[in-house]
Amino acid sequence: MAGSSFGTIFRISTWGESHGAGIGVVVDGCPAGLPLCEEDIQIFLNRRKPGQSRFATPRKEDDAVEILSGVFEGKTTGTPISLMVRNTSQRSKDYSEIASYYRPGHADYTFDQKYGFRDYRGGGRSSGRETIGRVAAGAIAARLLEQLGISVMAYTRTIGPVTISSFDEEEIFRNNLYMPDADAAAKAADYLNDCMKDKNSSGGMVECVVKGLPAGLGDPVFEKLDANLAKAILSIGAVKGFEIGSGMAAAQSTGLENNDAFVLKEDGTMGKKTNHAGGVLGGISDGSELIFRAAIKPTPSIASLQHTVNKSGEEIEISIKGRHDPIIVPRAVVVVESMAALVIADALLMNMSAKMEYLEKIYG
Amino acid sequence: MAGSSFGTIFRISTWGESHGAGIGVVVDGCPAGLPLCEEDIQIFLNRRKPGQSRFATPRKEDDAVEILSGVFEGKTTGTPISLMVRNTSQRSKDYSEIASYYRPGHADYTFDQKYGFRDYRGGGRSSGRETIGRVAAGAIAARLLEQLGISVMAYTRTIGPVTISSFDEEEIFRNNLYMPDADAAAKAADYLNDCMKDKNSSGGMVECVVKGLPAGLGDPVFEKLDANLAKAILSIGAVKGFEIGSGMAAAQSTGLENNDAFVLKEDGTMGKKTNHAGGVLGGISDGSELIFRAAIKPTPSIASLQHTVNKSGEEIEISIKGRHDPIIVPRAVVVVESMAALVIADALLMNMSAKMEYLEKIYG
Amino acid sequence: MAGSSFGTIFRISTWGESHGAGIGVVVDGCPAGLPLCEEDIQIFLNRRKPGQSRFATPRKEDDAVEILSGVFEGKTTGTPISLMVRNTSQRSKDYSEIASYYRPGHADYTFDQKYGFRDYRGGGRSSGRETIGRVAAGAIAARLLEQLGISVMAYTRTIGPVTISSFDEEEIFRNNLYMPDADAAAKAADYLNDCMKDKNSSGGMVECVVKGLPAGLGDPVFEKLDANLAKAILSIGAVKGFEIGSGMAAAQSTGLENNDAFVLKEDGTMGKKTNHAGGVLGGISDGSELIFRAAIKPTPSIASLQHTVNKSGEEIEISIKGRHDPIIVPRAVVVVESMAALVIADALLMNMSAKMEYLEKIYG
Amino acid sequence: MAGSSFGTIFRISTWGESHGAGIGVVVDGCPAGLPLCEEDIQIFLNRRKPGQSRFATPRKEDDAVEILSGVFEGKTTGTPISLMVRNTSQRSKDYSEIASYYRPGHADYTFDQKYGFRDYRGGGRSSGRETIGRVAAGAIAARLLEQLGISVMAYTRTIGPVTISSFDEEEIFRNNLYMPDADAAAKAADYLNDCMKDKNSSGGMVECVVKGLPAGLGDPVFEKLDANLAKAILSIGAVKGFEIGSGMAAAQSTGLENNDAFVLKEDGTMGKKTNHAGGVLGGISDGSELIFRAAIKPTPSIASLQHTVNKSGEEIEISIKGRHDPIIVPRAVVVVESMAALVIADALLMNMSAKMEYLEKIYG
Repeated sequence: MAGSSFGTIFRISTWGESHGAGIGVVVDGCPAGLPLCEEDIQIFLNRRKPGQSRFATPRKEDDAVEILSGVFEGKTTGTPISLMVRNTSQRSKDYSEIASYYRPGHADYTFDQKYGFRDYRGGGRSSGRETIGRVAAGAIAARLLEQLGISVMAYTRTIGPVTISSFDEEEIFRNNLYMPDADAAAKAADYLNDCMKDKNSSGGMVECVVKGLPAGLGDPVFEKLDANLAKAILSIGAVKGFEIGSGMAAAQSTGLENNDAFVLKEDGTMGKKTNHAGGVLGGISDGSELIFRAAIKPTPSIASLQHTVNKSGEEIEISIKGRHDPIIVPRAVVVVESMAALVIADALLMNMSAKMEYLEKIYG
Repeated sequence: MAGSSFGTIFRISTWGESHGAGIGVVVDGCPAGLPLCEEDIQIFLNRRKPGQSRFATPRKEDDAVEILSGVFEGKTTGTPISLMVRNTSQRSKDYSEIASYYRPGHADYTFDQKYGFRDYRGGGRSSGRETIGRVAAGAIAARLLEQLGISVMAYTRTIGPVTISSFDEEEIFRNNLYMPDADAAAKAADYLNDCMKDKNSSGGMVECVVKGLPAGLGDPVFEKLDANLAKAILSIGAVKGFEIGSGMAAAQSTGLENNDAFVLKEDGTMGKKTNHAGGVLGGISDGSELIFRAAIKPTPSIASLQHTVNKSGEEIEISIKGRHDPIIVPRAVVVVESMAALVIADALLMNMSAKMEYLEKIYG
Repeated sequence: MAGSSFGTIFRISTWGESHGAGIGVVVDGCPAGLPLCEEDIQIFLNRRKPGQSRFATPRKEDDAVEILSGVFEGKTTGTPISLMVRNTSQRSKDYSEIASYYRPGHADYTFDQKYGFRDYRGGGRSSGRETIGRVAAGAIAARLLEQLGISVMAYTRTIGPVTISSFDEEEIFRNNLYMPDADAAAKAADYLNDCMKDKNSSGGMVECVVKGLPAGLGDPVFEKLDANLAKAILSIGAVKGFEIGSGMAAAQSTGLENNDAFVLKEDGTMGKKTNHAGGVLGGISDGSELIFRAAIKPTPSIASLQHTVNKSGEEIEISIKGRHDPIIVPRAVVVVESMAALVIADALLMNMSAKMEYLEKIYG
Repeated sequence: MAGSSFGTIFRISTWGESHGAGIGVVVDGCPAGLPLCEEDIQIFLNRRKPGQSRFATPRKEDDAVEILSGVFEGKTTGTPISLMVRNTSQRSKDYSEIASYYRPGHADYTFDQKYGFRDYRGGGRSSGRETIGRVAAGAIAARLLEQLGISVMAYTRTIGPVTISSFDEEEIFRNNLYMPDADAAAKAADYLNDCMKDKNSSGGMVECVVKGLPAGLGDPVFEKLDANLAKAILSIGAVKGFEIGSGMAAAQSTGLENNDAFVLKEDGTMGKKTNHAGGVLGGISDGSELIFRAAIKPTPSIASLQHTVNKSGEEIEISIKGRHDPIIVPRAVVVVESMAALVIADALLMNMSAKMEYLEKIYG
């Protein structure tokens, strides 16, 4: 099945395994005339690179992106933009043992069941490196949104038991955990140190806010803006839950609490007193901030002893070697942001044919 | 934008507004040779019909389905199955007032923003009646799954503050709230009575379990089985959150707690000691039970006074007339089940081309 | 496989067999605000109705269309437009014999091979009645194009050995054969009379011209405007060839003959001295008239004795009973026109996201 | 618009311009377990390389392919196969003049109209080099078909006025023009020499035969096998017409002549006495040989003086410099073959879900 593409008009197709020649993405459907250079993309990729903190694996990955097509004289041409990152520091020998058994919490077993065999080197297609294609494409989507005054910003909301209790946007890039609250970041660092000492790992939550979104994006039935965000976010490895606005808490709420009263803003435009909806009503953006969260499970690769089964059908005890991030969340922040940018860019383009008035603006 | 279709091979296209001529769905891509009759579909539709309990609106809706094509001599022919339910009891006059203002929590405002105007009668395309197409198609998907020994079962897990604490499958259809726990159902009924007295409404949570699923369904990147489920579920009106397996709780968990150890089952086949994954590893079904939950917001139509803005741009106070369900959850149970069946049927068909071995089984 | 949908943004899904309850189509993605009523569609359907000339089957088919959804107060709402025509005059008993053998030139055998069995009544899904859905949807597409000053006009170019040698647009609707040349139409009528006497049938060619098309529609690689037209036209039953501009003759031409020199038109805009390209360069409309042709095979149902094989695997001689059109072409004219309108409407909507300049016009 | 992908399950996405960093394709949806190496692909690419005959441009293009992902231990893994050919011998300076005017018969003008500007170097995305991605992907599709006993073979049928009159399969690869008739090839070579002397170019026709195809591939409505072939072939630059079986000649034929009688073959299986249908009935393969033809226009780049308009809106005379193939046909042969292989591979995979019997073979 052709499952490596995402989006309808702004459509990406990713490729690559952790230990193949490289990782890449083809972005098709980006409008012509968008200013774009490799640096725009590299900035995003650098945010997901490992080795940036003591909580990220020290594997050296340069992840230098090359634009192979679709950009001419500094602008997108309207034809496919092909991006590639060569794999450079992967050592296949480290992974030979993994080939013989099924790691708990990983896709080893399901790959074998689906395809009959698997590229066992470093997780193959299920490696975290697969997100390079998403982030490279997301950087282009974010660049497009920026031109229209739309910003997408993700950050770490919780790590294990630690939740942010204040919000300082600049702080996000100051600490290695991408938390907008310095105190919480410090506590979370302590917690992660304990996890590492215990040969254990931690889950956490990413939150994402989109500002400047016009009302009217998304569709009323299957292509609801929040439905596409949910798919985008759950398609990121390790994500186990998605919620928008009041989210899971809406289940314990009442209509009087959860309804957002419409009000007129000071400038006379439409607004809402609260935003339990998270910026989407009936699947369509309502002009408020869009806000959603993703729950991310703990890194499944842990140094502690684990029980599993090997390919010969014997129960065994294993201990996963090598250095692994004790938490996925901080490196997933930019992945969440990228997927959100892709969904919104596509919704923007899809919405251009919503009414005859728009056709007349362009063809009239 | 063409947003009323869902699925890739097993693909449905729904149509219809609450006050148009009817509601329907075209199911394209259903394999030929599946035994099917109108009764198979009507049984599903009856589960979402209003008027079955005192917590559901007493509007009379017959919702009798007609198979218009695609079935010959009691079996599907492989060509599109068109299903229609005529709208019979809708009275447009009830809704004339709504046309003049924007109801909080509804899609009135976003429709106007997107399309320039809207069919304001009974919510138009955003009405709960839109789910008739989903459920009718879901019944066919469920019929297909049944042939392969796969069952999909949804039920009410929570209503407001009340959560089930026991599980009796037969109880689900015994109480009007579709709860598998009679005590919880009684408490929830009391809670809903209080909501109604307060001219208020309640949220809740639906849980869904899929049994008999083979390992190998779903794709490792964007078409992850859980990603498609997330989209399917969030595409249902009023759903604000989705989680699979340990879900949101995974964010507060550790690797040691959350990893599911592989074990050999008594019959020598592969199993897992726990199921925090919820039946999916790396986006692909692992052969365990698939389990997920949907958080549903309270009915936005409440009789209490609410603040909003009218189409003339004035702030006003409104009180929504007519009888409305004080809770969406019970009638959403079969919608969740239907969407899950559609996702899994499509994943089954998509997976048939996963490996050369399968091609040889069919063409060899 | 889900093969009953066509188009990307302006997307249709057809359903129905010749002897089921009816035939229909769901049009999804039509922009909101297009004026539309049943009469707009009925006019198109009437052009494909049988019984209009002595060369068309005298079966009575009313083919009255019903708009089931998507239109409110005389305008499209942006949500799916569902159209249905009830089957009324079909008599299943006429076709019982057909069930036992494979008609030459028909899809009887291939249906059995593909699906394991078939709805043998009147051709089932392969009946000419299947085109009702295309034409009903095509009428909407043509209505949309009309608003933007684009016209699509098809007509009969050849019938057997008779080719038009003059062009009078008004004549097209004056003769039963839809030929723009009265003399040719008279000769063709004689030829068809001879065919009928001989219990034989005739092929022919439809030509289609699109005027008012802006330059820039279509895509440079797989979604070339002419590639999509070719698919659209070959998807009509009985079409065996498609050519655009100089078409097949280009194969025998030279560059000096076939290249169209660019010139400035009197109003200073860009034009071409000739139009061998048929209005498309590199897959993208060039602002000239678009012109293409479809070759249509003779009606396979003929009264003459034919050799075939029955379902028991015996060679037999058959003679197909009932009245059948001695030529498909005249009734196919409006089907070709409809498919062309659908392709162009979709290309118009797809092209709206081609450049940043357009995004700024709508969102800026 | 995202127009660089083709296929539904076996889906390719191509990228690259003639003077960018390279040309490539991502093949998604290829079943796991197909033996594949770079040599399999290189053989196909070598057939479209220039410089192989005096009728092909002497530009040196190595076109060495690199498999970047999706193959592990000599077999496809089921995940995307990324292929890249670096551009090495392109010299941008040769094309600076072209930037200032619109070449007749090329996409220069339509690109400017669509995107606002264009990559004018060597035709950019509209260059013949774009077909590298198609051919590389087609090689994989052909490899898959080969495993199932299906062969796809294209060859030159006509060049200008010269048509083949005999058929020797081995001769196809013996002459530079890929004609299966040595005499015709010699005459065609003379004709092309004359064209070159006259600073002119020639059109021609490619024919393609598919053997070993099972009955049942393709769909009865929009996804007819021949409709998808038509799109695939018309999506190749310079193709102006497509016909299957009796093709355009069907328009001048009668039912008695054109119908193919069903007969029993010596082995007792179903056959047809003739094959005017070209192997497809009602859009579905009938088990006979599939045969179709593509008409290809003369190379538009000719050294003769031509009239056109420049970007300043002045009429000018130009003479296109550089060496260009006097005919496109021979190098298009492998492109036609590749596109046919892609269509058939996709139809094979799509057909796997046609009936319940197949599901039981795989999941039963």
